[in-house]
Order: sequence, then structure tokens, then C-alpha cells
Amino acid sequence: MSAGDKCLQEGRYVALSGGVGGAKLSLGLANLLGDRLTIIVNTGDDFEHLGLYVSPDIDTTIYTLSDLVNPDTGWGRRDESWNFMAAIAQLGSPGWFRLGDSDLAMHVERTRRLRAGESLTAVTAHYAECFGIAAKVLPMSDDPVRTIVDTDLGRLAFQEYFVREQCRPRISAINFDGAVSARPCQIALAALAEPNLSGVIICPSNPYLSVDPILAVPGIKEALKACDAPVIAISPIIAGKAVKGPTAKIMEQLGRSADAVTVARHYAGLLSAFVLDKCDAGRAVDLMLPTLVTNTLMRSLDDKISLARACLDFCAELRKGAQR
Amino acid sequence: MSAGDKCLQEGRYVALSGGVGGAKLSLGLANLLGDRLTIIVNTGDDFEHLGLYVSPDIDTTIYTLSDLVNPDTGWGRRDESWNFMAAIAQLGSPGWFRLGDSDLAMHVERTRRLRAGESLTAVTAHYAECFGIAAKVLPMSDDPVRTIVDTDLGRLAFQEYFVREQCRPRISAINFDGAVSARPCQIALAALAEPNLSGVIICPSNPYLSVDPILAVPGIKEALKACDAPVIAISPIIAGKAVKGPTAKIMEQLGRSADAVTVARHYAGLLSAFVLDKCDAGRAVDLMLPTLVTNTLMRSLDDKISLARACLDFCAELRKGAQR
Repeated sequence: MSAGDKCLQEGRYVALSGGVGGAKLSLGLANLLGDRLTIIVNTGDDFEHLGLYVSPDIDTTIYTLSDLVNPDTGWGRRDESWNFMAAIAQLGSPGWFRLGDSDLAMHVERTRRLRAGESLTAVTAHYAECFGIAAKVLPMSDDPVRTIVDTDLGRLAFQEYFVREQCRPRISAINFDGAVSARPCQIALAALAEPNLSGVIICPSNPYLSVDPILAVPGIKEALKACDAPVIAISPIIAGKAVKGPTAKIMEQLGRSADAVTVARHYAGLLSAFVLDKCDAGRAVDLMLPTLVTNTLMRSLDDKISLARACLDFCAELRKGAQR
Repeated sequence: MSAGDKCLQEGRYVALSGGVGGAKLSLGLANLLGDRLTIIVNTGDDFEHLGLYVSPDIDTTIYTLSDLVNPDTGWGRRDESWNFMAAIAQLGSPGWFRLGDSDLAMHVERTRRLRAGESLTAVTAHYAECFGIAAKVLPMSDDPVRTIVDTDLGRLAFQEYFVREQCRPRISAINFDGAVSARPCQIALAALAEPNLSGVIICPSNPYLSVDPILAVPGIKEALKACDAPVIAISPIIAGKAVKGPTAKIMEQLGRSADAVTVARHYAGLLSAFVLDKCDAGRAVDLMLPTLVTNTLMRSLDDKISLARACLDFCAELRKGAQR
């Protein structure tokens, strides 16, 4: 048995993830690891809409891992109907954030449970169980952390910027309201502190909007630095472009060069190594880090599992290197 | 112009109504009266389900008056889809009270507005406006009144008895929790006190479960007694049977004879006159009240308008009689 195969059968891993891109790699990892995977998910995008507590990145993760996700969008449910939204429009209520009829069950039931005193961690665990997901899906915190962007249209809540304004406003700064006093999810911290942890994988999510909120929760960055396992990140930027979403545009607006190297440097001090796409192979030398150059574009399920396997093998190599 | 035609063009009327049967006559009345109709609706059936504030009789009234109602059931929306309920079942949440995808918008938005501090009266007025309803649709009270039945299965909230248990338990008593301290809807009281009021119509709803909760709200019974206009009721019992629902069964369980005369006597002291079906023409002599014998079964829209017109004409006659 190779070291790689052994780690596939035994090691425990933690992933940090945002929405669509992160959920894709999480699905690959979950296929290989099952209940040995813990996914810490960004909740900076969470918000209340129509009085319902909406947690977009958690739901994207759950739908993706249970094969219920809409394959065309990467979020929301497949075969969705939209009669609720049509009726909401009749009542003159805002329709810019669209909640599908099936998807609505997640928000209604989560809102009810949170109001009854359950934690977001408990609600998320219940959902994962209902959908037969073996991996642990965890919110980064049970406390509210809200991503707010300063733009040329003023301060906007994340979903206002992302959905209502379609990422058109120019961003000058990104804030995580509430982060300073948020307590990290204790199960997440415990997973990062496990003595037999084999690796931490920062998924190819938007570093500024999806991963930074997780790192802004006091204790999580420290836990990453303190853990014995290698910490690797996968670039969400391929050949200067984001696979999906406004990552590249935001990097430019924030005065940064939109490339994989900038992403790696953004995580300076946290990473043992970095994973970048074959298109960016030439940039590997610019990094003062071990690198894995591989195909990072995930179209099919096979792509997701292949990238996941490459990441796990890379972690095994890094562990071996550390032992020498 | 006959007195009847004049009253159709000028008079103001108040209806007291429960669910399906009451909404049918309300529709007939609304067709003839438009904004000169005020409907005071039972809210004793209201309850919280999946964390949402559900107001069944108000919604049945609104859907019926806006021609959105499901013609097969008399409640809920036509052309409804049920994907939310399927998703709720996946989350292991209770499915005995079914909320359709379109219908859900009413409950979500009402819950949000009530939590934001709006009154049920204001929310209901907003809905009526959105659906182009000219008649005033009013909850009997903005305060919670909850119909609770004592049964051989113990105390049951109305919807538990009516929907979950399908009216199977045997009722020994009916309570209206909260009624003693509930304040009547002020717009309803004002409508009943109007000097030019032409009539009050107690719709053919269940007297014990739908109309009694309205009459239990302090001030409403007194306003009915004090108003100058005739107060008439239409029997929901035709030839010893309820057109819909458990009215006849409940009357028997409460030790009462299930017939139109019992209904009239139930409203003793409140009524100027009573309306009963042609099937029960022979029972008119048993009442110590003026009676109108007419077709009270409402199948088509024409039936509803015909019965409404007969009720308005009857009120006009009663007013003329009172002036003599």
C-alpha cells in the first residue's frame, strides 16, 4: 500500500470552503474521505430575507454533496419550481433574491429552529444527516458575521452587492461585521486540533469574500498555524481569470494583480504549499512555497475527484517531507 | 327604483364569516356591494406552523374574493404546486398541514410583517389591496384568540382536530383561549356602529367553530345588539346536514339536534331574522323570527350572487318593516 492509498483510507482532513467553487472540491474530497472530512463553511454571506434566515454557502455545500444541486448554476436545487416567488411578487415584496419552492424548506425550517434556540451548527448537522451526507458540514461560527462591502454605491451587504447589484459596484474595501466578537465553531476548532489530522485544504473559493470571513473568526487562523498537518490552498484564479464570480474583478479593484501568485501571497504565513493550474505552471517559481501544478478546473465529477485525490496525495508528500 | 335596488346601490353591509361557506357568500355579497362590504373574519383557527403565522379563514376569504381559490377544495390556491412540502418531508418536519408553494408567500410575508410590528389588520388590508379586493376584509381581532376543543383525545388546537385528526375525535367542549382579553378590530366595530348600516349578515359558517369565536371577542356581540340595522343569519345546515365540514357532527356531539332551527336558536337575542333553505321550509314556523326561505346551497357563482341578493333584499324588507 502506498503512502497515498494509506492516507486515503485513514487520514482526516479539514476543508475551508465558500460557495460554488469550494463545494465542487468538497464533493471530490467527500467522495474519497466520507466521514473523515470536515468542511468549515463561510457564513459571512448569510442574511435575513423575507424574514427567513438564508445561509447560501452552507446550502450550496449541502446540495452539492447530496447531488441535489442545480448543475447549470452550481447553487440552488435542480428541477426547481418558482411559484413562491411569483406569489411574493403579487404581494409587492422584493424579488431580487430568488428562493425556489423546494429550496425554501431549508430557510423556513432553519429559521424556525434558530428561533427555537438551536445553533446553526446543529441545524446544519441535521440537514446533512437528512440528505445522507457523511462529511461534517460546519458553519465557521454560530454567531453572526456579515460580509459588508464598501463600494461606489455605499456600504452594501454581501447579497445586495452580489445578487441585487450583480457585482457591478466598484469595491474599495471588504468588512466582516461581527467577526471580532464571533466565537468559532467548536467542532471546527476540535477538527483542526486533532493529532491525526492529515491536511487542511483551502478550497478554490474567493479568498477575499469567501475564505477571509472564515479566517476573520478569532481562533481559526491560529488553529491553522498551530496544526501539525500541511495546509494547502488551491488557486481560484486560472490564467488570470476566475472560474466563476467576481474574484478577478475584485482583486483588480482592490489594487492587486489578478493571478494565482497573488492568491498564494494573500495566504502568506498560513500555507505549507500551494496548488495552481497547469495554465499557470510558469508562475510556480515565483512562489517561495512547495507547489503542485495540476488541472484545477472542475467540470465533471471525475475532475472534482481527480483534483481532490491530487490534493490528498500532495498532503501525504508534504507530511513525508516534514518527517525527513 | 325599488327599495331593493336602492339598497344595492347605497347601503353598507357587514358580514361575519368563517372559512369556505362564509367565503362563498362573501363573494356573492362582494360582487353586489364592492367597497360597501366589510367582512369580519374568524381568526380562532390561526396558528403557527413551521414557524409561520397561518390564518386559514382570512386566506380562504382573500383567495375566494380574488378568484384564486382552488375550486375543488374551497380553500388554498388553484393550480398549486407542492414542492415545498416534499422538501419539508426530506428534512423530517411535520407534513400534516400542507402549505402549497404559492400559498406559502402569504404565510412567509405575514410572519415577517407581524414580527416587524404590523397588525394583522394592516397585513390583511395590504393583501386585499394586492389582490384587487374592494371589500374590507378584517380579522375579528389583532390579538390571539385560539379555538381549542376538548375531545376524547384530550385538548386539541383547532387545526390539530380539523386537519391532523380529520375531525375524528369526539368533541365535548369548545374554548376560545385568549378571547376574554382580546380587543376587537376597531375598524370592525366602527363598521357595525355606522349610522347608515343597512344590514349585518352572519354567513352560513359553522356557528360553534367559526362564528362563536368572533362573537366571543368582547364588544362584537354588544355592537351587533346595538346596531340599528337588521342582523340576519343563514343556516349552514340544510336538511339536517352540513354542506361542508363537521358542523352537523359537532352539533350532535354537543347534544344538540343538527337542524336549521337549532342554529337560529344558537344566535338567540342577536338576530332580527333568519334565512333557511327551501328543504327546511317546514321548520320556519318553529322560529319566533321573521324568516326567508330560499335556495342556500351555493355551487356556482350565480348561486352565490343570488343568495347574496336575496339576503340584501331581505334586509331591505326588514328595515322597511322596522320603520312601520
